[in-house]
Amino acid sequence: MRRQNLGAVLRFVHLHGPTSRAELTSRLGLNRSTIGALAADLAAAGLVTEEAPTTARRAGRPSLVVSPCSTRVHATALSIEPHRLRAARVGLGGRILDLRETPRPCGASPLDAVVPLAELVRAMERDLSDDTRGAGSAVAVADTVREADGTVRVAGADETLVAALDTALASAGRGRPGFVAGDLADIAALAEHTRGVATGVDDLVYLHGDPGLSAGIVTGGRLVVGHGGRSGKVGHMVVDPNGRRCGCGSRGCWETEAGSDALLRRAGAPPGTSPVAVLRAAALGDAVARDAVHGVAEWLGFGVANLVNVFNPDLVVFGGTLRELYAAGAGTVRRRLDTMALPASREHLHLRAASLGADAPLIGAAELAFDSLLSDPLNAPGAVGASGQ
Amino acid sequence: MRRQNLGAVLRFVHLHGPTSRAELTSRLGLNRSTIGALAADLAAAGLVTEEAPTTARRAGRPSLVVSPCSTRVHATALSIEPHRLRAARVGLGGRILDLRETPRPCGASPLDAVVPLAELVRAMERDLSDDTRGAGSAVAVADTVREADGTVRVAGADETLVAALDTALASAGRGRPGFVAGDLADIAALAEHTRGVATGVDDLVYLHGDPGLSAGIVTGGRLVVGHGGRSGKVGHMVVDPNGRRCGCGSRGCWETEAGSDALLRRAGAPPGTSPVAVLRAAALGDAVARDAVHGVAEWLGFGVANLVNVFNPDLVVFGGTLRELYAAGAGTVRRRLDTMALPASREHLHLRAASLGADAPLIGAAELAFDSLLSDPLNAPGAVGASGQ
Repeated sequence: MRRQNLGAVLRFVHLHGPTSRAELTSRLGLNRSTIGALAADLAAAGLVTEEAPTTARRAGRPSLVVSPCSTRVHATALSIEPHRLRAARVGLGGRILDLRETPRPCGASPLDAVVPLAELVRAMERDLSDDTRGAGSAVAVADTVREADGTVRVAGADETLVAALDTALASAGRGRPGFVAGDLADIAALAEHTRGVATGVDDLVYLHGDPGLSAGIVTGGRLVVGHGGRSGKVGHMVVDPNGRRCGCGSRGCWETEAGSDALLRRAGAPPGTSPVAVLRAAALGDAVARDAVHGVAEWLGFGVANLVNVFNPDLVVFGGTLRELYAAGAGTVRRRLDTMALPASREHLHLRAASLGADAPLIGAAELAFDSLLSDPLNAPGAVGASGQ
Repeated sequence: MRRQNLGAVLRFVHLHGPTSRAELTSRLGLNRSTIGALAADLAAAGLVTEEAPTTARRAGRPSLVVSPCSTRVHATALSIEPHRLRAARVGLGGRILDLRETPRPCGASPLDAVVPLAELVRAMERDLSDDTRGAGSAVAVADTVREADGTVRVAGADETLVAALDTALASAGRGRPGFVAGDLADIAALAEHTRGVATGVDDLVYLHGDPGLSAGIVTGGRLVVGHGGRSGKVGHMVVDPNGRRCGCGSRGCWETEAGSDALLRRAGAPPGTSPVAVLRAAALGDAVARDAVHGVAEWLGFGVANLVNVFNPDLVVFGGTLRELYAAGAGTVRRRLDTMALPASREHLHLRAASLGADAPLIGAAELAFDSLLSDPLNAPGAVGASGQ
């Protein structure tokens, strides 16, 4: 019970930032003296600080403000993305304290990322002071690998990768607990669900463009994972039986028509061009670019309508490279939905651009990494005396 | 704690049938005297009986066998299906004790079903002896209504329907607790998950043909419901952008190509013919019928591949009118999957025909109806002295 209450207080300030004891008392439904004791224990463990508020807004003795130790306690968050690898230190409270990246060669497998990621982490930790504590580590892994010839292979987070990262990082510096790994779109969905545009929404489809399309899907407040952890490969739903050959071996997959490669192809831009360049040209009135945006947004709406009929979500979020495409083609997407999605399913539907941008996979990975600390604050590796050094 | 243990014992014999105290002890991880006391309490409440086994298989005093009171305690299960209405009394333990049905006119709304369903229930209850107990009531409602002109409207279980049924049945006979309602495909999925081919499977897609297509989807052991309870309208995923006009207003919906109407159309059979007649003709070698089965099975596999890429289930179950179609076209469906579903998602995938047949919606509704009794056996309406009479 006490462990659960300690976790509730720490999780609250981790998610909501500095909070007075008085507000914690009312928000968590615990009495005042219990909150005081819990906050004192968390402060003694070096997880929160307590201070008098800078401006007392009411008469009487002001309630102490409880803040997460956002620079002293941190998680190590990694991402294996199609074209780059990133490593971040994310403080308790969710702020990115340090961020490093390195390019990822085309066709490289997730395992090829272990050594360069360990390098990034080593560099980050070199300048850390001794009183910082690592609370855990997690990695977000893009679910597919694209070879130079366009072939697409499913290759996400698996046990081999987790074990290799665990070993490489243990030797890279201070000890840390076992790794957590997940699919990049799932983890970005978790980030938007926890701290972004989907906070408080229990039924959502998060779509990630990178340049393929994948989804992280939450139903009834829980992430859909699938039997083998491979759910959400929505980019390989076939939307056009007579469509283009896809790198996965099938034909007419959604990502061949609504991914950023499709945007470049329609705009006549060479592969490798940033899709943002096409969107900018369209915004400036370039007719070819505008047609390209319209055509891709039509197919984007097409696939979204199918997912809406299947899941009946409250919210669809467009993230990764889809963020800007959605912003440019929202009207087209919505019109497609209005002709294809069942009225009962689209009635209460909201469409939104992701709010955490490119940081979503790292912020989500940090949430996974913090989870054991937040579940058991005084016995988890983030606490003083239990950091595994 | 005691309530939870009573529920565990009752649920076990409800799901697994007569079980010895010795087996309950080992399967539920409780000690022998606790099981004895719980079974005695359930017996005193008229929910189970205890008897010495007919053949003692081992030396020593035989362990009493605990059996659910399968004729005395029952649930009222109703279904509102496209062409008929059904009412059943389902005994504790899951056996159908009585089943009545009446035709449903084309285009009738779910609310139109209230009076004829109440008639069926009244007829069932007329002959009941006084010592029987109703444990609850639930209804499975087909998710769409088809007008005579082919128009499709989403019209499933809603509060108005539940309230109307509650009132009609309360006046139809003995008092009973509030109604539970759900989507027919969801409830049939629940039945297959609890007592059918999907028992023990946590990630499954149950597809129901009736003659449209809908799905009940379980991920991580929980039913996907959606924001407004409208998930699983998979029949209205568009699979062919240039396809036929669908009654829902869209074009190329999955059910226009893989539903039983598509089978009749391809076989040149008049609407209203039983799809089983086409399947029989195909089995006897009729070339047109065989082509029709092959063509529809191709489209069935097409949509299943999309759902497999989205959900990564362990199992896909074919129920309702899809049961026989799948049996006839399994090879075609599997070949489609092998070209369209991602290898990582189809590797461990099983495809199976539903095992509960046309009874699935009624058996699933009974499970919903029994739930409050199984959660709190001595205080729920199924217990002696609390039947609401």
